[in-house]
Amino acid sequence: MVDTHLHPFDAALTLIPGPSDPKTTFVGRTHPAYQNMVGPYGGLSAAQALQAVLQHPALLGQPVALTVNYAAAIADGELRVEVDPVRTNRSTQHWTVAITQDDSVVLTATVMTAARRATWSAADVAMPEVPRPSELPRSPCDGRPTWFQRYDMRFCRGNFPEPWDGAERESLTQVWVRDDPDRPIDITSLAAMCDVFYPRVWLRRGTPTPAGTVTLTSYFHVGRAELAAASSGYVFAQARGIRYFNGYFDQSAHLWSEAGQLLATSHQLVYFKE
Amino acid sequence: MVDTHLHPFDAALTLIPGPSDPKTTFVGRTHPAYQNMVGPYGGLSAAQALQAVLQHPALLGQPVALTVNYAAAIADGELRVEVDPVRTNRSTQHWTVAITQDDSVVLTATVMTAARRATWSAADVAMPEVPRPSELPRSPCDGRPTWFQRYDMRFCRGNFPEPWDGAERESLTQVWVRDDPDRPIDITSLAAMCDVFYPRVWLRRGTPTPAGTVTLTSYFHVGRAELAAASSGYVFAQARGIRYFNGYFDQSAHLWSEAGQLLATSHQLVYFKE
Repeated sequence: MVDTHLHPFDAALTLIPGPSDPKTTFVGRTHPAYQNMVGPYGGLSAAQALQAVLQHPALLGQPVALTVNYAAAIADGELRVEVDPVRTNRSTQHWTVAITQDDSVVLTATVMTAARRATWSAADVAMPEVPRPSELPRSPCDGRPTWFQRYDMRFCRGNFPEPWDGAERESLTQVWVRDDPDRPIDITSLAAMCDVFYPRVWLRRGTPTPAGTVTLTSYFHVGRAELAAASSGYVFAQARGIRYFNGYFDQSAHLWSEAGQLLATSHQLVYFKE
Repeated sequence: MVDTHLHPFDAALTLIPGPSDPKTTFVGRTHPAYQNMVGPYGGLSAAQALQAVLQHPALLGQPVALTVNYAAAIADGELRVEVDPVRTNRSTQHWTVAITQDDSVVLTATVMTAARRATWSAADVAMPEVPRPSELPRSPCDGRPTWFQRYDMRFCRGNFPEPWDGAERESLTQVWVRDDPDRPIDITSLAAMCDVFYPRVWLRRGTPTPAGTVTLTSYFHVGRAELAAASSGYVFAQARGIRYFNGYFDQSAHLWSEAGQLLATSHQLVYFKE
């Protein structure tokens, strides 16, 4: 059943309560609007793992950290999300999540949620000065996987090499990102956007080779007020490769609100083939 | 029973096989040589979680990624490490780890191991030019927690503010690190060193306030040959804070061999109190 009134992201995030014994489970599905070359867009799977925590009746606070391990290819169709609040403290809570298909684990995640309180705050990394989204053209989606159409992307720097010339380049990408159709940013869509970058090794080497995220960790620097303030704008997303070594590379990313507030820091390790 | 022939790090990492049904377990202990202000040094707990994976009979490949969530204070004494190879593929393996005390979860971890093969390799972050360890004094351990004595640390930059003057500073620390007593670097000691930095917020604000790592993610850019090449030297460790917001801040760290090879990238989210 497809509810056509829902935004595709909300449709893709829909989780139906499943059995709760011994652990709370939800049943979800892959969604055709977020398909990648093989299986779903990794950002969507990360958001599904987080959504299961958000729907759990014992939830304390808001997400501050999320790690997702992409253990195996996810097949089109149904998936089972098992979620467990393994430790609840006074103001923090630690969660484990496992997504299975046919009783095989395809994804594991850990989430930390916390009731935050106002403290001294600062940022040691400033948002770079870049053109506004309205001054830049939207990146075309031709020839890209389907999920690409779900984001209005406007590259400031580090767009896909054109042509794929095999020349070595700097691995930095700077891009404005917004859901398409437009949708107010919330913690799940922010979590999904943390994975919006095409593989750094493609840019670094000017060649698109097989590559896929194997683990992703995001830290969220927002409460509800900050998300509400950022909700109607674009996100400015920047990523850079760090080290490429024997089949794996890592990257670090920062995501700012249009007003320049650092909303999330995100890191991932990516498998690549030569 | 304490084996006095063992290096304190190896003594602290000792895990005795426990019951293997339904999941493989090991029994370990906190170690007085690695005590922090409250409970054990977080780097040691990370290494213990990793060690359980390394001792598992089904292990495939070598660690490429480790995430550790510090769910609760660890009490002095025995701990139970539960380790589960939740997904094994052709050349990769995904693990979950839980450390419990008195049946309560105090730490969760996920580990990814992989059989790597040689590919094109590069680094987009260069090791900064700094004085050699022999040109720098060893940092005194007076007034520091016990685990500090387990590392020969030589600060190039970003040593503890002296005095604690409450002035805002840059959050960058650069420090040479070696086990004390000296011990060849391996993947577990490298994992432990990823947590060697005192809290960035102390440096940033010139004030030591309560702070503790809540989650740590490290990516390893080494195989056995690279570890062997680095094993007799110091590690050059650099960390910088990113965003401090309402009770939590994150930091990113890079660890190089003395010869300038990037061995690990490590990120953490840290709780802090004003």
